[in-house]
Amino acid sequence: MSPDPADPAAALIAGYRERLAKALAQRLPAAGQYPARLHEAMRYASDGGKRLRPLLVYLSGRALGIDAHRLDAAACAVEMIHVYSLVHDDLPAMDDDALRRGRPTTHIAFDEATAILVGDALQTLAFQTLADDAAGGLSASQRLRMVAILAHAAGSRGMVGGQAVDLESEHRQLTLAELEALHIHKTGALIRACMQMACAAADDCPADAAQALDRYGKCVGLAFQIQDDVLDVEGSADTLGKTAGKDHASGKSTYPALLGLGAARQRAEELFAQAREALGLLGTRADALLAFTEAIRQRAH
Amino acid sequence: MSPDPADPAAALIAGYRERLAKALAQRLPAAGQYPARLHEAMRYASDGGKRLRPLLVYLSGRALGIDAHRLDAAACAVEMIHVYSLVHDDLPAMDDDALRRGRPTTHIAFDEATAILVGDALQTLAFQTLADDAAGGLSASQRLRMVAILAHAAGSRGMVGGQAVDLESEHRQLTLAELEALHIHKTGALIRACMQMACAAADDCPADAAQALDRYGKCVGLAFQIQDDVLDVEGSADTLGKTAGKDHASGKSTYPALLGLGAARQRAEELFAQAREALGLLGTRADALLAFTEAIRQRAH
Repeated sequence: MSPDPADPAAALIAGYRERLAKALAQRLPAAGQYPARLHEAMRYASDGGKRLRPLLVYLSGRALGIDAHRLDAAACAVEMIHVYSLVHDDLPAMDDDALRRGRPTTHIAFDEATAILVGDALQTLAFQTLADDAAGGLSASQRLRMVAILAHAAGSRGMVGGQAVDLESEHRQLTLAELEALHIHKTGALIRACMQMACAAADDCPADAAQALDRYGKCVGLAFQIQDDVLDVEGSADTLGKTAGKDHASGKSTYPALLGLGAARQRAEELFAQAREALGLLGTRADALLAFTEAIRQRAH
Repeated sequence: MSPDPADPAAALIAGYRERLAKALAQRLPAAGQYPARLHEAMRYASDGGKRLRPLLVYLSGRALGIDAHRLDAAACAVEMIHVYSLVHDDLPAMDDDALRRGRPTTHIAFDEATAILVGDALQTLAFQTLADDAAGGLSASQRLRMVAILAHAAGSRGMVGGQAVDLESEHRQLTLAELEALHIHKTGALIRACMQMACAAADDCPADAAQALDRYGKCVGLAFQIQDDVLDVEGSADTLGKTAGKDHASGKSTYPALLGLGAARQRAEELFAQAREALGLLGTRADALLAFTEAIRQRAH
């Protein structure tokens, strides 16, 4: 996923990555602003990472022919929601993790109370970003639609609901259907929201394009999760940027544990293939999204 | 603040209280819905309380001549934000409180991880409520304006920022100016948002009425906080619905500690008087809001 100037898709993705970094920096409170420590911690938590979700917003938008400046607020907002969820997931009362993105987690680098408030404030800022952003040229209905999409995906019937089920399921063997339901909520909902927000930024998004992107989002979200489970078994903290072997140690149900490592890998491959197929309808405008999907698929090969 | 059929303002307030309970119940996920335990805990946390903020939304809206059904979403959303902040404030890493609204706090009644997720999900639901609510007949711009108002008030430059400063200030004597800045963020911002959201629900809110309500909100917010500090010294857990004497025990700066009990009481009285004065411009339509303010003022007399 590192940029290669000879590869136009990689250069484009690197450009979006830079664009996102700038857009985020503009929207996060300045580190010196009152209350300074909280704002410093918000910036610390938001730094780095794969930026998978905002890149999906930009690349899906591109596949629909939408200018990138119309997508900045959505890209920032979804990343803020994702980061808030990581900060809270890492807390001692939750997954109790000390390492994230190759650095100490927020409650280790600062303290537990600050980490709780960082997550709270980043969630608020996500919705504020959508509500405030007039620069993107979106109508009030389009921005309100994005608030609704993001809230549905992030709430108790989406991401947070999945996290609750995940915690309840520790030290209990899930069925494959239960595990899939868990991930559809915990990670799938927010990934699908990326594509839905891109559609909301279009003035007139064709129904078949919206459906194709939604199918893509469903498949790639689950593929990514299964791949994450596989990497947790195979990988090192270097590849993951977080503690490896953690799922197994905490007694969590995973795809490799349920299916075996080989079959889990194969299931991820099938889903990546379905994701690619779904993009067929969008033609060459989806080439960069296709290349990005391939880069995700190969991240640990 | 208990209803008295001979008192029209009290009957009106009791009516709004019932209206809010119904509106909240409709918007909170059903207790049996997946994930059931999280949704049960969200309902547990949202039950009871003074409902100060939603009543301020309804009563300010009434003072502007706005139909109550246009205010339901805003009233629910501000209460959800308030409840989420209480659930997180009570956590062991924060204020570590076991009693709230006369019952065990959410992390005691359920567990710490669930309480974190309850707060997270209630915040999301607040924004979802504003974005989804078409029944109130508000335009997309009006609802988006409410999202912006609520996010600004709740975020790191508002309520959560105040909470961060509050935690940093434990065991350190604040100046009066610092204490006031803290409360303007921690409780004042969300109370002012009630009046601002009521104005946003008006199709054409006169600037002088908006200013009068904003001045009212500033004064009543601070008065309420000073009164809370006074009651923490004077009161019992019965009156407060939470552990009394807690501020002193945790080494927090309070108005009685800084000013003395008598002067703190007097400062609250002055602010209540200024709040009443601000409502003068709105005429008899603000009578119920005035009566409610008086009921708050007298809550422990």
